[in-house]
This record gives sequence, structure tokens and C-alpha cells, in this order.
Amino acid sequence: MSARKLSGPVADLSRSPGARLHPVSIAAVALTDSFWEPRIRTNREVTLAAQLKQCRETGRIENFECAAGRKDVPFQGIYFNDSDVYKWLEAAAYSLGTNPNAILDAEVDEVIQIVGAAQQPNGYLNTYYMFEREKDRFTNLKDMHEIYCAGHLIQAAVAHSRATGKSTLLDIASRLADHLYDVFGPGKRVGACGHEEAEMALVELYRETGKREYLELALAMTDARGHKPPILGGSAYHQDHLPLVDQKEMTGHAVRHLYYLSGAADLVAEENPPGYQAALEALWQNLTRRRVYVTGGAGSRYEGEAFGSDYELPNERAYTETCAAIASVMWNWRMLNITGEARFADLMELTLYNAVLPGLALDGEHYFYENPLADTGGHRRQAWFGCACCPPNIARLLASLTGYFYSTSGNAVWAHLYAAGEAQIPLETGGIATITQSTEYPWDGSITLKVSLQDAESTTLHLRIPAWARRALIRLNGKPANIHAEPGEYAKVPVKDGTTVILTLPMQAERIASHAYVRSNMGRIALKRGPLVYCIEGTDHPGVDVRNIALPDNSDLIAEHRTDLLGGITVLQAQAVAISPGEDTLYMPYEAEEELDVEPVAFTAIPYYAWANRAAGGMEVWIPTLPEIEFEDEDQEDA
Amino acid sequence: MSARKLSGPVADLSRSPGARLHPVSIAAVALTDSFWEPRIRTNREVTLAAQLKQCRETGRIENFECAAGRKDVPFQGIYFNDSDVYKWLEAAAYSLGTNPNAILDAEVDEVIQIVGAAQQPNGYLNTYYMFEREKDRFTNLKDMHEIYCAGHLIQAAVAHSRATGKSTLLDIASRLADHLYDVFGPGKRVGACGHEEAEMALVELYRETGKREYLELALAMTDARGHKPPILGGSAYHQDHLPLVDQKEMTGHAVRHLYYLSGAADLVAEENPPGYQAALEALWQNLTRRRVYVTGGAGSRYEGEAFGSDYELPNERAYTETCAAIASVMWNWRMLNITGEARFADLMELTLYNAVLPGLALDGEHYFYENPLADTGGHRRQAWFGCACCPPNIARLLASLTGYFYSTSGNAVWAHLYAAGEAQIPLETGGIATITQSTEYPWDGSITLKVSLQDAESTTLHLRIPAWARRALIRLNGKPANIHAEPGEYAKVPVKDGTTVILTLPMQAERIASHAYVRSNMGRIALKRGPLVYCIEGTDHPGVDVRNIALPDNSDLIAEHRTDLLGGITVLQAQAVAISPGEDTLYMPYEAEEELDVEPVAFTAIPYYAWANRAAGGMEVWIPTLPEIEFEDEDQEDA
Repeated sequence: MSARKLSGPVADLSRSPGARLHPVSIAAVALTDSFWEPRIRTNREVTLAAQLKQCRETGRIENFECAAGRKDVPFQGIYFNDSDVYKWLEAAAYSLGTNPNAILDAEVDEVIQIVGAAQQPNGYLNTYYMFEREKDRFTNLKDMHEIYCAGHLIQAAVAHSRATGKSTLLDIASRLADHLYDVFGPGKRVGACGHEEAEMALVELYRETGKREYLELALAMTDARGHKPPILGGSAYHQDHLPLVDQKEMTGHAVRHLYYLSGAADLVAEENPPGYQAALEALWQNLTRRRVYVTGGAGSRYEGEAFGSDYELPNERAYTETCAAIASVMWNWRMLNITGEARFADLMELTLYNAVLPGLALDGEHYFYENPLADTGGHRRQAWFGCACCPPNIARLLASLTGYFYSTSGNAVWAHLYAAGEAQIPLETGGIATITQSTEYPWDGSITLKVSLQDAESTTLHLRIPAWARRALIRLNGKPANIHAEPGEYAKVPVKDGTTVILTLPMQAERIASHAYVRSNMGRIALKRGPLVYCIEGTDHPGVDVRNIALPDNSDLIAEHRTDLLGGITVLQAQAVAISPGEDTLYMPYEAEEELDVEPVAFTAIPYYAWANRAAGGMEVWIPTLPEIEFEDEDQEDA
Repeated sequence: MSARKLSGPVADLSRSPGARLHPVSIAAVALTDSFWEPRIRTNREVTLAAQLKQCRETGRIENFECAAGRKDVPFQGIYFNDSDVYKWLEAAAYSLGTNPNAILDAEVDEVIQIVGAAQQPNGYLNTYYMFEREKDRFTNLKDMHEIYCAGHLIQAAVAHSRATGKSTLLDIASRLADHLYDVFGPGKRVGACGHEEAEMALVELYRETGKREYLELALAMTDARGHKPPILGGSAYHQDHLPLVDQKEMTGHAVRHLYYLSGAADLVAEENPPGYQAALEALWQNLTRRRVYVTGGAGSRYEGEAFGSDYELPNERAYTETCAAIASVMWNWRMLNITGEARFADLMELTLYNAVLPGLALDGEHYFYENPLADTGGHRRQAWFGCACCPPNIARLLASLTGYFYSTSGNAVWAHLYAAGEAQIPLETGGIATITQSTEYPWDGSITLKVSLQDAESTTLHLRIPAWARRALIRLNGKPANIHAEPGEYAKVPVKDGTTVILTLPMQAERIASHAYVRSNMGRIALKRGPLVYCIEGTDHPGVDVRNIALPDNSDLIAEHRTDLLGGITVLQAQAVAISPGEDTLYMPYEAEEELDVEPVAFTAIPYYAWANRAAGGMEVWIPTLPEIEFEDEDQEDA
């Protein structure tokens, strides 16, 4: 267990004064389930290697070699490509923390060596700004992502230090951070990056090294935005239109805003700067009440990769960048640990399953950048991108996913996510709680948690009751327990060594409607079961354009688990109809009493995350409803 | 009448071998109606002066003075700003053709003098590419709009020559066109502009000067697109993905594609290059069956100011640039004259009223660039833009609008548009037909046409029966005439000197539905009456969010003419309901049997073109429907 214990949490709020909960090490949890564990294994065995190969073949590694003076070819790719190498390092580091591997360790060491060789004597490190471009360093903070790249290096370094105990990458990152402090520290030049990211990285570096300067720099950079005259052009796109404390709406580039808020949450956990927490709360309300997809996906617009206006949530043109979903997970993870409120864990889980995971193919080496909620068959995952932010971002999230399962507070253990596996959790009051989850979650809502305690008398398990779980039940050692288990809260379950807790979260297929102002969803419903959002795909409905499919209000939705399909999924089946779309005319006189031309259709919905892993075809998350109709044997009379 | 006769048509297809119809001079028609005439007058009296002022204050004129060496300040504004001055000149020239005015004439001469002074000895003229940028001329055809600006100069010059008989601007434009021919003519460098426009301009210059080289150059530029290796990057955005003859979909930047097709239509009219007409037809079908708004507006996407996929027609995020609507009018005008088919005139009229006109405020000096079909109150017209393509584009269209009313063919006169006024139309077979229209169109569909013939025995009036006009009636000298008057065709009416024709196009408010695949319009209808599309505005529904308003299927729509409102409009009134949008939650369990919380609302729709001329507020074109409900006296029981 020694290698395991070495790894730290995903974001180390374990000593943060403003955090109510304290995350545990990513190595504290070993999954044995059939959902996440195979994905994390694929990430480790397929994705990491494929991504390193991509980084090599696209010149991303070579850029460092050139900057180090070992090669002499022009800079390759986009000016922020260093960040992809850093995100890969971070992913690899997490993997080394949970699953030590000598080959990967050597590869990581080799990349770190090349990265270090590119570092300048003053600590500066960015392979784009070398040689003839050296004079332009830090001259265009708005557009050029220099500090953003530094942030990703710092996150990789912290992860590497925590996972391996080696300081090689941390030393490089610290030198760069020291350089940033020299340039942008309090009392120096007021500056921040047009693409936020470094803020949360610097707080983590402070947590890892104890150097308060990094915390001060993160605070200075966070507060640098939104002032007059602006430092980044003053646009909402850059979150430079208003100081954080005055922001009320999710706006501009979605990944940037969500990274920004992750950093601000880290600052709340450490320093609680005046007005921060209220602003974060207002922004979270704006996100969840106005600007988030049913999947948890964020960022509606292609133009600017940006949040839209209130209720602007188009489906076929949903942008919902995979990175934005990951950023939302990171922000909600921090908010959850600060507050202990289940709503943040709910959104985190929703986003994980339905907005992050669709970004990755089942094969572990094809990716979505945009994640539309409807498609006519053209949107397919790619092996890589010119702007390849998403692939290594998924890799680092999956490699660290075990870190999102539990937190502690005092004598208590908080269970946020459910999957079969074992967790060894040091209690803050001393001793270790070993919690073994047995469950088929997310396919089934029955979760057995066996608790064994070492050097501790008792603990309180805080079990998240998801907001969708009405009538949750808790049994203690086989007997119904009179424990408050309200949806959207944590149930507090006192346990001792040997206690078995059975938590039942009744899962049933649900039709979800959206607010009347969401123009795209009028007359449509989405399907959910447990934490999963469903969709229909063309390949399950041969001969039918899925745009024609409507689900009558009286059609029962039957859940069936199919081990043979898409790695094992629970499908939802129903009797539905296909409505003829009518004439090939764009506009026509409206006929109120129109008799619909409908055909019965055997309807099969699959989890949205699994779409586009088979033959190309249409896909719809939001499905038109129909009033109750009479079903006859394969014969359809009237709609 | 001599000044009138001088002006030519908008696009002079009068001698084009491939044109079935031949447009008449813009000065042949003098409107006296209460709809267009006041707008054209405002354009002449307010808009032209305001735009010249803007061109002066924003450095657009000064750029020419600097290029001429008369001033020495850096280039001001965007690199294609010359084109705005040219479009203003074109608008002013049309106005001089229909309404000679010594002051405007002098202003035009002064601007022409400054433009001419900026021309280079070799004919080159673009104020951005002067001095230190001279070396970069024609080095970036894809992005820098040099040939586009030349095209606008040429159009202005042709208009000025036709309107005033002066050759001052035509000489400048010819020298520039000769220079373009030297560089890009057949057998020289293969090139075209990333932003099409010059193609149609060059055909017009050929028509005006008789120099075949300009026609050859237009053909070469049109054919330069879509080849491998590409000359403009090969993107659909630039219409460089496929040769014209292989294009089947409206795609990329909407204004560019529509200008491109206007030029291609001009080439069809002159030369009928193989495959052109079939491609234009396929693209027109794609536009009208898949990618046009109910208003005639084109271009759905903010990103790239571009056409979207099939059925991608969002309302609140409709881009529908005013310039794209104008370009569509120009293309359809050419298609109409080539074919004599009323469908092109129908789309042209629809677009004029409902996609061009909304771009202009009633005051004649505020403009929309984008024209959404729904809004929550934030979208307001501006006095000018940094990229100010739309304002002078509207000005040139309005100033030449009289040229779109009639064409001739053989002994026949074709009436495309209806408005009170007098037209003096030379018949191709000799003599002059004077046609006096008396009508309250577009508010009323009764049109009286009095014909007097001079030096001619008879003519055939081809009267457009709009596609919306079911049961059109024609009376000749007071008596019902047995003349085929099919919607979407031209009725052929034989007339003699003194004949009075009464054409009745019954107008009634209509509910319009859209194809089931238009996601934005599901469960919604649009309202039309005659050629006008309607909308509802917040200011007419105090205390009600217009997003809440639904129109029951059994609500009668009552048309009422209101001379006091918005310059005189016919409104549509009905009993409707406001549906409470419910809880402030984005997603919720769907309740099929939900009882709607509705309130009766007195519903008033106004023509869409007139929106945003009063207090800011919501606006909707596509209105949710409700099944029939029972209306009681100010009391609403059940929905």
C-alpha cells in the first residue's frame, strides 16, 4: 500500500481552512467495477500510449527538443501545444500513483528531462517563445496562452510529485512559478492569462510546496480581471468585463470561465477573499438554472466556444466542449469540498457520465471536441486534433477519477460517487476506514458498503442521495434504518467495524422536460435513468430517420441490461412511432387538425455517452412527445 | 422625362441573350404609394446624408485623401472600408438618376474626385494597400477583399454613368478593371477574391462599356474557385471547396455565396456557360427547401456569417445578415429576368419586405446587421458599424428599388411588384406603355392598373400572382376576365390603350408551419398576410413576456389598419393566452397531463420589418400554438 498512500488528492483541500470536506488520495480507492475500472484501465493501457505517440508525431515533444537546442526545426503546431504534453504528463503521473509501472515511469522521466532542458536560466519555459520570438514573451497575455501553459506544467508537476515522490518536474514548475511571481507578483506588473488555468495550478503548488507566494500570485491574477483599463481587452469572452465579485452570469469562453471559477474556489478554500463565495454561488445558480445542458455540458455556442444567453441551449449545434465539462467537474469538486453540499456532487456526477464521457470513444483513442445533443450522422470522434486540448484532458481526469469518490471531515467519511471497489481512507480523527462497495451502479441503484475500521471505534458515513433518487432506502446490517435520506442531500449513517450498509437508490426511466424558454426543447422530453442521460441512435432504428421518432406519453419505458452491447449497457425500450415529416417543403400553411401519418417503431434508447461508437447515423437526446395513443398489435390506428 | 430615361436598369440584362425578360430603367417608375415612396424619400433625404457624414467621420473618405497624398494619417478602420464609400456612391448615383439634385450631384463629384486622386498610375486603387503596404497588393486574395472593393467601385461607376451620363467614375473603374484584367485575365494569374462581388460588377461593366475583356475576367474569376490546388484555401466558407457547376448546397459565408451566384447568373444571361444554370437551380432549391428563413433571410450562423446545415434555422440566434438578404434579392432578380419564372419574384418580394427592410429603422438612419427572428429585448439598431457593409447596401437597394418593378419581353410588360405609382415603359416592339398602379399594397391586395399606350396598338401585361394569393381575380374594364391567374405564375392580360385592369389578390392572415425537421419551430406557427411576415412585440403586450404567448388554433386573426402606428401598418389581432413558464428550474420531471396555467392576452402582431422601432422588449416571429380552447368573457377556464 505504500505506493498508493503516496499519491495525494486531485485537489489537495485536505488542509484548506475554508474547506468543510477533505478529499482523499486518488490511490486510496481501487475500483473493481465493470463501468469505470475498465475505462481507467483502457486509459492507462491504450490512451496514454496513443497520446504520447500523437505528441511525438505532431512535434509537440520535438518543440521542447528544439527549445533546448537539441534540434533545429521550426516550431510545430499551435502556440499553446506545450500544454498538451503537460496534460499528458499529469495523466501519466496520476496513473503512476495508482498503478506504478516502470515503463511509463521511464517515459515520463524522459519527457520531464526534455521539458527541463528547454527551461531558460531565469525559469521561463514556453517552446513557442524561443529564439527570434524571445523578445515577445508576455507581450500578448490576452491571446497567447503563455501563463495557461505554465499552469498545466504546474498541475502536472504537483501530480507527479504526489504520485512518485520525485521532485524533477516540481523543481522545473517551481522555477517557472518563481519567474511568474517575479514578473506578475503583488506589487509588480498586473497581469493574467487570457485563458485561465494557472490560478488553480498556483494554489495547488502552494499546497504542495507551502510557498505562500504562489497563493498570492493566484489571488493577484484572479483579481487582475475586470478592471478599467482592462488588462485583457475587457471582453466577457476573456472574463475581463467585470471583477469576479461582480460577475453574475456564466459568459464568454466556457472552459476559461470554468477554470477561472475552479481557481477562485481554490482561493475560497485557502483565503476566502471577500465576495468570492457569493459570486461563485451566483454563477453556479446562473449555470444550473439558465445555461447548462441536461447532460451537464456547458457552452452552447460555436462562436467563441462560449456560453450563450439564458436558455440558449441548441441541440444539434450544441458546442459543449469536452474540456468545458471537465472544467465543470473540477469546479464542482472544489465547491463540494468547500461546502459539503450534495448539489455540487450531483452536477459533478451528471457531468462525468454525460458530458465528459461522451468525449471518449469506447476504444480509448478517439475523441469528441464538441458534443452535440442531436446529429444527422456526420459528427464522429477523431484520433486527435490540431487543437488537442480535450484528449489529454480526458486522460488526466480518468487517471485521477478515483480521487473524486470520497472526502473526509472529522470522524466522518463522505461517499460522493458509487462503484464497486475498495477504499482505504485515513480518518482525520485517527485510524483507517476500509469501505468496500458492491454495486452494479450506474445500472442498478443498490449499493452495499461494507465497513471495516482499523484503530477506530466508529465513523459516520455520509452517503450522497442523488437528487433523482426519490424514496432512497438505507439498511444497516440487513435491517431498515431510520435514517433521513432526502434526495439531494447526504444521509448520515453511523457505522462501526463490520457494519454493512445497503443503500438503495431506486432507478427508473424518467421523462425530463425543460423550462418553457428553452426553445430547442419545446414539445420534447429527454430520458434519464439514474445518473445517465439517454439518446436514440439511427443504428438501433433501421429504416427510420430518428428525427421522425416521437414517444407517446403512455409508452412504458422498459429497462433491459445488455451485456453484449457497447461494453455492457442498460437500454430503454418502448413502443414509439415514426411521424412522416411530410412534404419536402420548408414552409406551408398550418393545419391544426392535421392527422399525423405515423408508423409504429420499436424504440431503443442507449446511454448518451455511448453514442457514435457504431455505424454512423442520426442521434437525438430530446425526443418529441405525443399525447397518449392506442397501441394495437403492430397496427397503428390513430395519433 | 429625359433625366428619367437616362438611368439604366439595376442590372442591365436588356440586351443579354440568355435573359427572357429585360429590366426597365429605375427612372421609368415613379412611385406615389404610402409604403415604398416615403422610404425611398427618407433614403434620399436622410440616409444618404447621414451615411456620407459617417463615411467622413470614420476616416473612410480621409483614407482616399491619404492615398492621394493630400493628407498623412495612418489608414483608418477596416481594410475593406473603401467599399462603403463606393456603395454610398452607387446609392447616390441611383438617387441622382431618379431625383436629380444639384447638391448631391456636387457631393458625388467631390467624392469621385477624391477617389480618382487616389488611383495609382497603373489603375490600382485600394487605400489600404498604399505606401509601405504597396508590396503586399494581391498577395492575400483570400482575406483582404481587394477585388471585392474594386467590384463595388465598378458597380458605383456603372450606376453613376447610367444615372448622370458622366464618365468620371466610369473612367476610374475602367482603369482599375483594366488593371485587374492585366493581372488576372485569361492566360494570366488564376485568381479571384475571397469575398465575391467583382464578378457581377465586371459583367455590368461589360454591359456598360461593351468591352468583352470584363466579361472574360468575370468568367475566369467565377471559374477560378473550387479547383485543386485551391486558390483561396479550398474552404466552403469561401465557396472554394467545389467548382460552381458541382455545388449543390448553399454554404459558407452567406453574402459571399449569394453575390457569387448573382455574378454567375449574370454570366448565364450573357454566355450561358455549361453547367451554370443547372447549378444555380440546384442551389436555389437547396436554399428554398432547406436553408432560408420564413422571412427570406439567409445565413443562420454567427460563426462565419454562414449558412447552416439543412433545417438549421435558429430564431433568437438567426444571423440573417441584412447584406445577405440584399444579395438574395440581387440573385433572384437576375434569375427572374433569365427565366421569367414567378418563384424568383416571389422570393425577391418576400425578402425585400421581411429580410431587407427590417435592417433599416423607420428613421432611416439606424440599422440591423443581424436580423434575429426572436429576441428578449437586447437587439437594437445602430447608427453605424465598424464593419458597415449593411447600411450603404440598404441605401443602394432602396435608391434603385423602382428598377425592380417591371421587365419587358417582346411586346409584353411584366409587373413583378405592386405599389401605387406610374411607370413609363418602352416596349421592345416600339412605343411606350404608361402603367398607373393604384393600390394600398402591401396592406390590401386590390390593384388597379391603368394602361395608356403611345405608338403601340396593344401589349400583354404579365401580372405576377404571388404564391400566397389563392383565388386571385382579374377584371378588365370592370368586367371579370377569363384569365388564368394561378398562384406562383404570371397572369397574361392583353391590354390596349385605356384598358383598366383590376387585379385582386385576396389577403388574409395565414398561419404558417415549417418542416418537421426545423427544430426551432416545433409546435410553433408564423403569421403572414400578403407578402408580410408578422411578429409580436413586448411593447404591445404590457406585463406579458412575449415568450409566454401562445395562439390557440381557434383564435381568429383580425386585420386592422392603424395609420397612427409605425408609419401606418396593418396589425393582426386575436385572443391569445399567456402560459406561465412555471418554476425557475431548467429541467424537471415531465408531466404529460400537466394543466397549463394560462391567462387570456389581447394579442397584437405587427409586420416583422417594423419591430424594434419602439420601446425595447421581447419579440417573436414563431409563436407556440395551442389546441382549440374555449374563450369566455375575460375569463379563462381551461386549456
